[in-house]
Order: sequence, then C-alpha cells, then structure tokens
Amino acid sequence: MAFDYSHLFRSGLPAPAAKWNGFPRYNFIGGHNDADAVPVDDFIAASRDVLTKDGQTLSTYGLASGPQGYQPLREFLAKSLNQRTGMTESADNILVVSGSLQALDLVNDVLLEPGDTVIVEEATYQGTLQRFDRLGVRHIGAPLDADGIQMDALERILEGLKAEGTSAKYIYTIPTVQNPTGSVMPEFRRLELLALARRFDVPIFEDDCYADLTFDGARPKAIRALDTEGQVIYCGSFSKTIAPALRVGYLVADWAVLSNLIAAKHDAGSGALEQMVLAEYCATHFDAHVGHMQEILSAKCDTIVEALDAEFGTSAEYLLPKGGIFIWVTLPDAVDTTKLAEVALAEGVALNPGAGWSSDPESGRHRLRLCFGHPSHEDIREGVARLAEICHRETGIPVRSANTQRD
Amino acid sequence: MAFDYSHLFRSGLPAPAAKWNGFPRYNFIGGHNDADAVPVDDFIAASRDVLTKDGQTLSTYGLASGPQGYQPLREFLAKSLNQRTGMTESADNILVVSGSLQALDLVNDVLLEPGDTVIVEEATYQGTLQRFDRLGVRHIGAPLDADGIQMDALERILEGLKAEGTSAKYIYTIPTVQNPTGSVMPEFRRLELLALARRFDVPIFEDDCYADLTFDGARPKAIRALDTEGQVIYCGSFSKTIAPALRVGYLVADWAVLSNLIAAKHDAGSGALEQMVLAEYCATHFDAHVGHMQEILSAKCDTIVEALDAEFGTSAEYLLPKGGIFIWVTLPDAVDTTKLAEVALAEGVALNPGAGWSSDPESGRHRLRLCFGHPSHEDIREGVARLAEICHRETGIPVRSANTQRD
Repeated sequence: MAFDYSHLFRSGLPAPAAKWNGFPRYNFIGGHNDADAVPVDDFIAASRDVLTKDGQTLSTYGLASGPQGYQPLREFLAKSLNQRTGMTESADNILVVSGSLQALDLVNDVLLEPGDTVIVEEATYQGTLQRFDRLGVRHIGAPLDADGIQMDALERILEGLKAEGTSAKYIYTIPTVQNPTGSVMPEFRRLELLALARRFDVPIFEDDCYADLTFDGARPKAIRALDTEGQVIYCGSFSKTIAPALRVGYLVADWAVLSNLIAAKHDAGSGALEQMVLAEYCATHFDAHVGHMQEILSAKCDTIVEALDAEFGTSAEYLLPKGGIFIWVTLPDAVDTTKLAEVALAEGVALNPGAGWSSDPESGRHRLRLCFGHPSHEDIREGVARLAEICHRETGIPVRSANTQRD
Repeated sequence: MAFDYSHLFRSGLPAPAAKWNGFPRYNFIGGHNDADAVPVDDFIAASRDVLTKDGQTLSTYGLASGPQGYQPLREFLAKSLNQRTGMTESADNILVVSGSLQALDLVNDVLLEPGDTVIVEEATYQGTLQRFDRLGVRHIGAPLDADGIQMDALERILEGLKAEGTSAKYIYTIPTVQNPTGSVMPEFRRLELLALARRFDVPIFEDDCYADLTFDGARPKAIRALDTEGQVIYCGSFSKTIAPALRVGYLVADWAVLSNLIAAKHDAGSGALEQMVLAEYCATHFDAHVGHMQEILSAKCDTIVEALDAEFGTSAEYLLPKGGIFIWVTLPDAVDTTKLAEVALAEGVALNPGAGWSSDPESGRHRLRLCFGHPSHEDIREGVARLAEICHRETGIPVRSANTQRD
C-alpha cells in the first residue's frame, strides 16, 4: 500500500507538477532562444581550454575562487559591464548566481518579510510576481508608457505609502528591454527615478537580464551606473544572450548589501563548469555573439509583428519592442487570454496570458505575451495564424484577418 | 554618501559574509576532494561529444527534457542506482537538482513549517541542522553507535513524540558513510528502521551522498530499495564521487511526493552543461572512477589515522571510517573544539568543531570533524602535527605525542 503523504505536506503547497509531455508545436512561452544561435563549436573549444587550465580546481567547492564565483568570470563581467552599461565595478562587487531567479530569491531573502510592500512595473516578469505572492509581500504596480515607468505616477505611489506611514522595501524595475513590453527607459527618466528613490529612501532593484539584446545595439547607462551611493542592486544573466539552459546570472551591489546576499546563498556555490566555460567563451566571443543575437532576434521580431498585423489587424495593439525576445499584445477587452491560452495550448499553441504578467491581474486579462526567440520564422507565421483562428472561433475576434472577413 | 540599508534588512538576518581570503594552508574542512583525481581529459572528451550531440538544446530551458533534468542523466542514474543500491526506479522518479543542498531545501519546503519536529542522527551534517534552525524546526538527535542509529533509542523518541500528541515530519538519516562518523548501517538495522517508520507513520529522508565511497566498494541496499511503499525520499550527489564544484545532485521519490518537489523547484532548471557532461562521462567512466576514488580516499584515511595516533595518542578517539572523506574525533571533555578551531584557523589549520555537527551542540563541544579528501598525504601529516601542537599549547592535551612527552 502506498505511503500517504497528504497529512504531512505543509499548508499552502502549490499544485503538484504534471508529467512533462514535451514542448508544444508553436512555443511562444518560456524565454527559450534560437537553437541555431548556440555557439556549439566555440563552447567545445572553450570547454577544452578552460578545463585544461583550471579543471583540477573542480575538486574544491567554489573553484578556489571563494563564494562569489569563478574569478575570471567576475573579471570578465566587471570589464564588460563597464563597456556596456557604464558601471564601474571591481570583481569584488559581483556575486555569480544560479540564474537571475536566484538573484531575485537572494535579494528577497535579505530584504523582505511577509506584509512588506514593493513597487513593480504594472506589467512585469511573472516569476517576480509569483515570488512576492509566495512570500506574502504586497506589490504595487507603477503605470508604464512607451518609456517605462511614469514618474509622476510613481511619485504619487511613494507619497501614498508615506501617508500610510509605511514605505516600499524596493522598487523593482526592468528598465532596458522591459519584460513584457520591450520598452527602454531613457536616461533622463532613469535620473528622475534615482532622484525619487533618494527622496523616499527606497533602494532600486535593476533587473537588466535582456539589456544586451536591444536591436540597434544601443542602450542607456544602467541606473546603477548613474548612482554614486550604492542605492541600486543590479542583476544580469547569460540566459538570454548565450543560452537559457546555462544557469548563470550575477548580482552587482555595494559590499554593505552584497556581503549579506553572499551570506544568504546557502548552496555551496553555483555550477562551476558553466561559469568556467562562459568565462573562457565570453572573454573573446561575447560582443560578436551578442551582435549576432541582436540581428537574429530583430528579424524574428519583424516576422511576428508582420504576422500579428496580417492575422489580427487592428484587433492587436502593441508597442514595437526595442529588443529582446517577446512582444506584449493587447486584444479587445472582450478577450480573456487566460481562457484563450488554455484552448490554444490544447491545439499546440503556447502563449503567456497577461494576467500572470500584471501586478493587477484584471488589468492584464485581455493581454498576452508572445516570445519569438525560439520558434523559426515559419513557425512564428503559422503559429500566429493558428492563434488568430482559435481566437476568432472562441471570441469572434479578430473579425478580419489577412484582408479576409472571417466567418 | 553611501546609502544606508540597515533599516531595510529583514529581522534575524545572519551575519554578513567576510571577504574571502583563500583556502587555509591545512584544509580539513569543506568536503573538497583530491585535485589529481578530477578526470580532466575525460571531461574534455565528454564535453566535446555531448555538445556535438545535444549542444543546440541549450537554447531551451530544461534542455528539452522537462523540469526533472536531462533525460540521459536520469537514465544513467536509474540504471546505476539499480546496480549500486538495489533500487528499481524509472527515470520518471528522479529529479535532478543543483546539488544535494537543493534536495534538502526542496524536501523541507514541501514538508516543513515552523514548529515542526524532525528526527536526525545525534551527529549529522551541519548544513542540515542549519536549515532546520533557520526554518524554526525542532530537531531531535537519535543516539548513534558503530552501526548508525540505535533503534531502541529511536523507538523511545518516536513514542515520546506520540505521548506529546505529535509526530516527526521525517527521519533524516545518512545511513551509508554517515556524516560525520563514517559508519555504515547494516541491512538488518535498515529493516528495523523501516519497520519503526511504518509503525509511527513517519517518512524517511535517506541522504546517500557519500554512499559510493565505501573503501571496500561494498554497501548494503539503500533503505529506499528495501521499501515497497514509497515511504523513503532518497537523495544523492556527484559532488563527492566526481567533483564538488559541479552542482548536481538528485532526488528519488514516488510520484505522489516527487510531483510536489518538482513544483517547489522555482529555478528554471539546474545547470545544463554540468548535467550533460556528467551524463556523457558517467555512462562509460563512473564505475571505474569510483573505484579509483575509493583507493585514493582509503589511502588518505590510513594516513590521517596514523597521524592522529602518532600525534594525539590516546587523547583522540574515533571510529575507523568505512568510507568517505572525513573522520569524527572525540577529544577529552576539557577541550572546547570551537575555541580550538578559531585558534587553529589563525595558524593555518582549518577543522570543523563538533558543536555545529551535533543536534545537541553541547554534546559535540569536545569533538571535531577532519576532512582528508583534499590535502595531500604530506599535508595531512603536517596539519595533524600542527593541530596537536596547537591543541597542546592551548589545552595541555595531548600530553604525549609521537612518543614524546610534550612540555
């Protein structure tokens, strides 16, 4: 007789996982990337070279680099972040982590308690919102426009909290290739954000995971680069630029907070082989590879925009993404994308319903996020057409597509 | 002016990390392994072969294997665990995790709430005890002898809890190469443990991280192999057999509990490159490599035992380890090993004071754990001699060593 665990599980456990049945035919979710873009041959060479050089250090936890991660990787990051974001950091201000999700967990572990409040962008990364919900932390969504957070609205939120006699523990922002809108906050607004954060004594958590993937290769300085007081905690990742299955991200912060983030990291180190291969590969290939990724993703973005225009016509509104791997689409109010996603998945089309990517789920109910990094151009076209058909069948929207009246 | 985080940190934060200053000269802590034993050339070949075959799947989270980990690695594990431990598992019952510490975190996340009780071995892995302390979970230490947990004592603990109207959420045991004592629980006692667990309706968490490293290559069946009801959650690791810096462990459990462990794993997958290289390497090299490690570690164990006998004489009592990388030493009551460790570290000798490895810290106050996997034979001899000198200077113990009266 099978042992019964049901009375032993803690209260509030999430639903158990279902058995995994492979990827859907048209996969517009999950942050996956272009399979042909993985630099397999260069990874093989990098593995050979770095293992020859440092392979024996795998016998020690932390690779003889201490708890902050492989020293050559941190040195590459210090240099690259300086060139790309304008931050001036030593390798000692960097903590390598097991993907940016661990960065979120560590910052939350150090700063948050149940009942705390954080400010987020009204549409933001689902994984972040889920973490706050699990922790019992209230999130308030700051309104967005094409340039990111609207500063007058943010000021009102901060004043409102002050009037309540409380404050936000931090402001979480994805300023460069915002997830899910694909916007880029201009420098003047970053300076306004910093000024507000100073006035209200609130740290900023700058999530820059997609920042290397602007389609034109340009980007404003990081907010942390504009800050001289250590008020910004910064995180980045190799998942989007190199490969999602490599679980390597990084936190950058002043020692006063970084020393606590290191102490909160109880995992005996992040994967060493991945750090070693990335350090070796990136030292000579990172910039060229990122340029290549920008071209690939820009072309796929063009394809999905054309497909949305052709299949959904005026029923689909979106901001043209300035980079990254996703587009945030608004459908007419009548469409419930949570229901749509369920039906579509059963027919092989996976999408992210907007409710999960919205601080106020109701405001995202008729929105959706489509990731275009992984599917081929052909699959993007076919998948969007398929989605339009399903949506029309289920909701009557879009009425017209591909210049043809649907019936 | 530097931003002040002090009022923002959550309550009860641990002490911040100190800057890392490299390994101590004589490093008897940390589970590190023999540097010369890292199979560098075979890793290079495995990296080349597996990247050639599956490198493109790095473009997707989870490597197109789903959230349980790289399918070929799970298939290797299913086969190897069957041969080595007697468990009959399909790859579907295995969850690859980022080192066995994540295995502990996931099991705890699914089963434990503050105020819960677990039963541990009276001397056990410090990382496990620290997790319970952080979670506000009470741990009760079951007395050990040379064969592991004493079953009559365990029965009294279980009865005591029942009399209190409560129960343990699980029994945590390291039955094969117990950490820190190095004992191996014989099969008859494993059966007694299972019978008690059934009678009192308590799951067993079997931590088998060192189990491949018995010096004679033999081991009893896993407790999970003796269980037909899914009452045992099993974890293992590649850290001790292959390389600690690779962060790859695994959980094995029936689907009723595994499906909840998978749902609790919020990290978008464990490091893919490490899983891939291990799968490729282990398929053809694991058994031979483990045999080689057993020889290396057995020889180092002989060296540390000789050094302890020579330098500490009858002042140091220990069980002869049956495998693994550590020895658990009892000194006379007068020695406080927490103080000794502090002085010794300042003089280049690192050891684990026993209090941290004891459910009742007071009972471990005069004990210490010495890891012998990483230092060379020469460093083991020098380091133990150095430690004896320091201990004699600080405490008068040992009175005699190396057949010479100390003065």
